Amino acid sequence: MNKGSDVISALQFTRSDVERLITIAEELRRRLEAGERIEAAKGRILFTAFFEPSTRTRLSFQFAMVRLGGSVVDLGPEEVTSRAKGESPEDTLRTVDSYNPDVIVVRHREPGFASKAAEICRAPVVNAGDGYNEHPTQALLDVYTIWRSLGRVDGVSIGLMGDLKYGRTVSSLSYILSNFRDVTIYFISPPALRPREEVLRILDQRRTRYEFAESLDEVVSRVDVLYVTRLQKERMSPEEYERLKGSYTVSYESLRKYGRIPLIMHPLPRVWELTPDVDVLPQAIYFEQARNGLYMRMALLKTILGV
Amino acid sequence: MNKGSDVISALQFTRSDVERLITIAEELRRRLEAGERIEAAKGRILFTAFFEPSTRTRLSFQFAMVRLGGSVVDLGPEEVTSRAKGESPEDTLRTVDSYNPDVIVVRHREPGFASKAAEICRAPVVNAGDGYNEHPTQALLDVYTIWRSLGRVDGVSIGLMGDLKYGRTVSSLSYILSNFRDVTIYFISPPALRPREEVLRILDQRRTRYEFAESLDEVVSRVDVLYVTRLQKERMSPEEYERLKGSYTVSYESLRKYGRIPLIMHPLPRVWELTPDVDVLPQAIYFEQARNGLYMRMALLKTILGV
Amino acid sequence: MNKGSDVISALQFTRSDVERLITIAEELRRRLEAGERIEAAKGRILFTAFFEPSTRTRLSFQFAMVRLGGSVVDLGPEEVTSRAKGESPEDTLRTVDSYNPDVIVVRHREPGFASKAAEICRAPVVNAGDGYNEHPTQALLDVYTIWRSLGRVDGVSIGLMGDLKYGRTVSSLSYILSNFRDVTIYFISPPALRPREEVLRILDQRRTRYEFAESLDEVVSRVDVLYVTRLQKERMSPEEYERLKGSYTVSYESLRKYGRIPLIMHPLPRVWELTPDVDVLPQAIYFEQARNGLYMRMALLKTILGV
Repeated sequence: MNKGSDVISALQFTRSDVERLITIAEELRRRLEAGERIEAAKGRILFTAFFEPSTRTRLSFQFAMVRLGGSVVDLGPEEVTSRAKGESPEDTLRTVDSYNPDVIVVRHREPGFASKAAEICRAPVVNAGDGYNEHPTQALLDVYTIWRSLGRVDGVSIGLMGDLKYGRTVSSLSYILSNFRDVTIYFISPPALRPREEVLRILDQRRTRYEFAESLDEVVSRVDVLYVTRLQKERMSPEEYERLKGSYTVSYESLRKYGRIPLIMHPLPRVWELTPDVDVLPQAIYFEQARNGLYMRMALLKTILGV
Repeated sequence: MNKGSDVISALQFTRSDVERLITIAEELRRRLEAGERIEAAKGRILFTAFFEPSTRTRLSFQFAMVRLGGSVVDLGPEEVTSRAKGESPEDTLRTVDSYNPDVIVVRHREPGFASKAAEICRAPVVNAGDGYNEHPTQALLDVYTIWRSLGRVDGVSIGLMGDLKYGRTVSSLSYILSNFRDVTIYFISPPALRPREEVLRILDQRRTRYEFAESLDEVVSRVDVLYVTRLQKERMSPEEYERLKGSYTVSYESLRKYGRIPLIMHPLPRVWELTPDVDVLPQAIYFEQARNGLYMRMALLKTILGV
Repeated sequence: MNKGSDVISALQFTRSDVERLITIAEELRRRLEAGERIEAAKGRILFTAFFEPSTRTRLSFQFAMVRLGGSVVDLGPEEVTSRAKGESPEDTLRTVDSYNPDVIVVRHREPGFASKAAEICRAPVVNAGDGYNEHPTQALLDVYTIWRSLGRVDGVSIGLMGDLKYGRTVSSLSYILSNFRDVTIYFISPPALRPREEVLRILDQRRTRYEFAESLDEVVSRVDVLYVTRLQKERMSPEEYERLKGSYTVSYESLRKYGRIPLIMHPLPRVWELTPDVDVLPQAIYFEQARNGLYMRMALLKTILGV
């Protein structure tokens, strides 16, 4: 991670990259909380291009850039842009890149799209989600959240639950975690929704421990952190979806039966898989996790811009 | 109204709050008209969250914040945000609140939503319309407009015409007016669309005079100001709607027959109930009213931000 | 072109206006490329009102304004604004004009709309496309591109190809070119899609040479620049559309057969009429053309704002 770097995959971050970003995020947090106004990115422009709807990722990048003193130009909702006239997203990006944005954040439903965008554009490109593939900045803020909550990442034991095959945060988070020592990942999902082969292969190469489970009950006593994600309706038959809904719902009720409740994380938005009654638990840290996204993305933008 | 206050209901404004806001609005107007650049809100971020479409309220808040030297981040059109994935607006707000906006302006079709939002968010929340319930900042600019046009609010006689039951500007404006002395409100509507009981009860408590009428003809000679609002099609049967359209349309023709034409106000947007040929009349002050919204919202933001 | 001018038609630009804008654009380009931060438009607000979808024109104006140090407020996609409630675009503009934007950029599908907007608004209005009528700022950047590529505009020989009847860039570009000496325009289109009478009449008055052709083959050896535009499906019968697609497609293959390949321009977005395999040719300057739009629009805004 240097000035001008593209951010395409979580695999490109070394342990020391992650640690450096956490340090910068903490410092920015401290300065903002002290009421300081930051102007590091004054005169710089972030271009946000979400070819797929997004609230929190788009908004947290926009807040991050504005809090750094910079400006934002947004593509706008894809449905109402030239895409209506049939333009390719590649042409759109290439054109906007010619307007000299200082950094481009892009989301697209096509796996590999961010990488293609980075080839097309002179400006640094940040992947804010390319289909089921990756979502590296989410993984950075997730690890930052673990670090803040536990004081360390080494030795963490984490359960990732939900649709692990098509959930892009799952692959990126696993990659970042594999930089750390003595991490154990429990993949909690129906067998058909386990992580993709390519993800497991990398964990194997990096000798990161992982196990599979089909229900939270099997592993809850062993995890420090439970990372809940959505089960996506469109990935399974209606019958299977209805059958699984019950066992993949984390609620106050379902957690109460455990002796020890792990920290609960979720990339949000949540639908039914994590009920609002969990919010009152001290272990519920998903809104704190969202907030961490602001500081981590500020740290990332600051690094890319070299300011 | 202090630094950090939420603005949920027009009922929270005392007479002296209103007067103070008018004073600030006038001062801001004078400075802007003198070509001064204001930087009071530099480094501050307004987050605008319109879960229901809006042009003028959203844009006037955005202009107000930028004219104060601050920045804006917008939720974007609701249809294309995470709402598509089924997230609750509460979760959306709570997440964005974690990004530390300095103030949040929210509109939602659910009565009471702004109040709920204020409980959820640490940032001050401004209600920009919660269903049929209230629209307090519209009421502030309305009263500012009356003050600017007549030189006073005490003693004003005003006709509110249209759908008074579900028009949120009607309740909020009535509440603000009830702070002033010797005000008379004429509610001009079909009997079924008279203001809600809760609104009338408050006027009774505050001993604000009001009368009902079914047509403008009955009261026009007695009002200083005619405040026209839309009759909403979805509130009545098609037959009734067609029947009422004629008598609830204010046009150059319909006004000409009166000896004395009152000031004409409208919260806009207008559809058929106020025809464009009225625009030429000196009594037509609805675009001036819209402009007043800029200064009043600047005054409000300045007060909330404490800058 | 002076401070405060509306920009409605390409006809309002004299040769010396164009030359002055090119000079300003070149200077801004040089300063930006030298890493300078420009703050000329600090405290000024551009309002962008695209009643018809747009990506590049909207974004390039927004980038231009932000690069000048100013701020942008955007109407938002038309579908989700008050337009849903039936407000006229005239009322929308008049209202927003009352918020005192420093300049308004407007696009609308109705020919003549920008002119109407300029009458309504106190702020200077820039036409970013009014139906099939005109798109003067596109024409300015087109001529700027010709000037940059050939070192002159006088004496240029250009082929305009596609739907010349309803393509608004065609009329505006022809008007600007007619300011220069010894220009020849080849209109390459099916006979039914030749430029409108009013356009030809003006070229006649200004004694600008033009010829008609039905295929590129007829004229390619004589043009310095080929300006490709879309053939719009909705303008012809499905059979005719299918029949013409082949001969109105510019591809690497189709260009290779010519002894000398002219410079290739396109206002973008392109669909099938210009294939991506052309991008590798040194003559393909349409992305450079897009970039020139940034500098030209900065020059234009700077001039209008008088900063």
